Amino acid sequence: MSGADQGVARARVELERCLAPDRLSATAFDLDRVSRDESSLPPGSADLVVFPESTAEVAAVTRIARETRTPLTARGGGTSLEGNPIPVLGGIVLDLGRMNRLLDVSPIDLYATVQPGLSHLELNRRLADFGLFFSATPGGTGVAATVGGLIANNASGIYSLRYGSARRSLLACEVVTGTGDVLRAGGMAPRRSSGYDLPGLLAGSEGTLGILTELTVSLHPVPESRRRSAAIFPTDDAAARAIGALRLHGLDLAAIELVNREAAALAAAEEGVAAREGALVLIEVHGSASAAAEISVEAGGVCRDGGGAVCSDAAAAQLWRCRERLTAAVRRAIPDARVVRADLGAPVSRLPELISWCDARRRAKNLALYIFGHGGVGILHALLPVPADSSAEADARDFRERLIERAVSLGGTVSAEHGIGIGNRHLMRLEHGEALGLMSGIKKLFDPEGVLNPGKVLPIC
Amino acid sequence: MSGADQGVARARVELERCLAPDRLSATAFDLDRVSRDESSLPPGSADLVVFPESTAEVAAVTRIARETRTPLTARGGGTSLEGNPIPVLGGIVLDLGRMNRLLDVSPIDLYATVQPGLSHLELNRRLADFGLFFSATPGGTGVAATVGGLIANNASGIYSLRYGSARRSLLACEVVTGTGDVLRAGGMAPRRSSGYDLPGLLAGSEGTLGILTELTVSLHPVPESRRRSAAIFPTDDAAARAIGALRLHGLDLAAIELVNREAAALAAAEEGVAAREGALVLIEVHGSASAAAEISVEAGGVCRDGGGAVCSDAAAAQLWRCRERLTAAVRRAIPDARVVRADLGAPVSRLPELISWCDARRRAKNLALYIFGHGGVGILHALLPVPADSSAEADARDFRERLIERAVSLGGTVSAEHGIGIGNRHLMRLEHGEALGLMSGIKKLFDPEGVLNPGKVLPIC
Repeated sequence: MSGADQGVARARVELERCLAPDRLSATAFDLDRVSRDESSLPPGSADLVVFPESTAEVAAVTRIARETRTPLTARGGGTSLEGNPIPVLGGIVLDLGRMNRLLDVSPIDLYATVQPGLSHLELNRRLADFGLFFSATPGGTGVAATVGGLIANNASGIYSLRYGSARRSLLACEVVTGTGDVLRAGGMAPRRSSGYDLPGLLAGSEGTLGILTELTVSLHPVPESRRRSAAIFPTDDAAARAIGALRLHGLDLAAIELVNREAAALAAAEEGVAAREGALVLIEVHGSASAAAEISVEAGGVCRDGGGAVCSDAAAAQLWRCRERLTAAVRRAIPDARVVRADLGAPVSRLPELISWCDARRRAKNLALYIFGHGGVGILHALLPVPADSSAEADARDFRERLIERAVSLGGTVSAEHGIGIGNRHLMRLEHGEALGLMSGIKKLFDPEGVLNPGKVLPIC
Repeated sequence: MSGADQGVARARVELERCLAPDRLSATAFDLDRVSRDESSLPPGSADLVVFPESTAEVAAVTRIARETRTPLTARGGGTSLEGNPIPVLGGIVLDLGRMNRLLDVSPIDLYATVQPGLSHLELNRRLADFGLFFSATPGGTGVAATVGGLIANNASGIYSLRYGSARRSLLACEVVTGTGDVLRAGGMAPRRSSGYDLPGLLAGSEGTLGILTELTVSLHPVPESRRRSAAIFPTDDAAARAIGALRLHGLDLAAIELVNREAAALAAAEEGVAAREGALVLIEVHGSASAAAEISVEAGGVCRDGGGAVCSDAAAAQLWRCRERLTAAVRRAIPDARVVRADLGAPVSRLPELISWCDARRRAKNLALYIFGHGGVGILHALLPVPADSSAEADARDFRERLIERAVSLGGTVSAEHGIGIGNRHLMRLEHGEALGLMSGIKKLFDPEGVLNPGKVLPIC
């Protein structure tokens, strides 16, 4: 038995001593399920799954993991796309699925307090009775995504243009750090200038600094009216430029989505939509019926000025549906495809440049490249489905690296909303340079033994 | 010469060696000016003022401060209200007033890059040409406040209801940490899920973790129309309840200000406004002319339902002017007054309770209590002007402590937007409990020798 195996064995004995039997599983089914996410990254190999039902149980597990130096990886819905919850070093996976209660809703304060394992769909279903919603929800896939997971990865989603990122929505939390201590951070006041921003630090830390066991997240009123529109552009570049123009006009839009020509054609074919060929800009406006209509018309004018053809309402609804199913459509584009993906962020003004670079380079390499995302906030998902272990896969991986380097050189980021996980760790120095030293120091402070989600986020830890 | 004095003397020799003579001053005028802020807190006693003109100079000064263990306090416009830039342990004050350039504006990306010493007024004057504005600006006083200072204190301001706090506006920064290292944190992409949130940590850290030498802050389009309205309520409690109702109705308001009866009467008397007596709720709506008008009417209806009398447009404009001059008016309320103040934050749903508690308690103690602030985001400034060293001052100080304890017990915060500075340090444990240990660890990581703004924020450091 190796030292690591001995640690796991000791942890198991301790866990069996202090938790009810139904909290633990080591069945092949459970171990396999928690060893992967929705990416094409290779699965890990969990030794044990724990299903905690309370903060005290999470703290007990964390203390045991720390004492026995056993890797401990928290898991929400498993919908991550960068291997964020894959237990690369084995050990314990903490499946938070049973901690899924909605604890409190305050309609005047526009917040809800939830346990981490509550899904965004269930939260929003229950908030509908209050006329409220939680905005940081995923687009196409990720129906099982949990509030804890969305916050831990600082997801943004379609409506982040108007409502901000998941990080911004975290007002307060209870957290178990790597020492097994239980702390509260932040508070219920909507504004705070009191000490260092610990909730902001925990949000987006991908379970490497602490395990969020209770979250108070800000909400928004369900808009009186939502108006969707769409415009088709002859080139990807023209569509990207139109997004810049929409921002420049200062229109109050809830969402601006970009879909490149290739992705638009794929989605249209899948959905049986006979749409005109071209790149798409999809727009959603929230507000009173009259204000939303007024802004939609203005946005249409801006698109037309940029060379776009504005669709009918019925066509726009169809194209929006296509957009929502794109991630799944790309997966089906090639049988048994492996999907090489990048989750870029860039300044909106640099999107045309980035998109043109992509187009030239993927032509040279003859790669299928589907780009779509929340263009209004500079988020582009670039997906390259390739047959596994093909030469195309090597080309696609090389393309991905060059593309991310390009985005960073334009002021952008390695990951806009899917996190660093496993797949982007080697690019952290490129983006953060010397600031990585402080990040490593913060990791050591919150998790001195490095048991929380080891092998993620930081390149060396 | 004490050890500290020797350190300062050595620092001075080093600084004279590496900086141009015009960068240094030890005149009584300069030393006095940088030893105080706009609070009534006792001034410190700076030994030396440095006026850096570049990041390299800030880094050089910081390295010298570190080597000689000399306190180093960064200073913007000096408009703080909690003693945040008062050099309580003497040493060097870094006056950032000469680093006041606007470096870049990107209208498509809605950001500006500035040096820290640029004032918000000057920034917004220059942004007007682009149809943009920086939202985290102070209300009544603070005309000299700088962008660096507003971010460092995580100011919110009147429009934070719609546009968020200063922390949220910081996309990227260059910072000199306590080791004298120069780092870049964050980036220009509007969304980022890449590593730990260092800009968010630096924002609101009051110069105790690093000195921001360049800031990229997000901007907003100047709204097509701004519509101000006002309603007068018979009691403070009714006004606070109306704010809850406005939130509950989900109206998209840019500002909701609360002014208690006492403050409203003072301001009206000062301005010669013959307003009906009562507590005020002041509202501002941003949007297209038609949308703003529509929302204003709805907001007026909500106020009326809550027992408020909605003012004419002319009266509303007058009352808004009164609000903007309130801080100054309170200062003049008593000759040579010392102003005891609290800068509370609380959940909006708890404002009526907090306001009623205030009213009962200040009557029992016969204190003049002026409360006003950004009620829509739960921010209340409570000001008690008292003759210096009177028994009323002792009563006011006691009242302040009890009030903050009360706010914290309701889920609120010791400081909503003025920061911890000196005056709130002893209350940090009350609010943050065990999380203070992590904050102290973060301080040590960024500033191992504790030279940056010592004696602030953390209760022990």
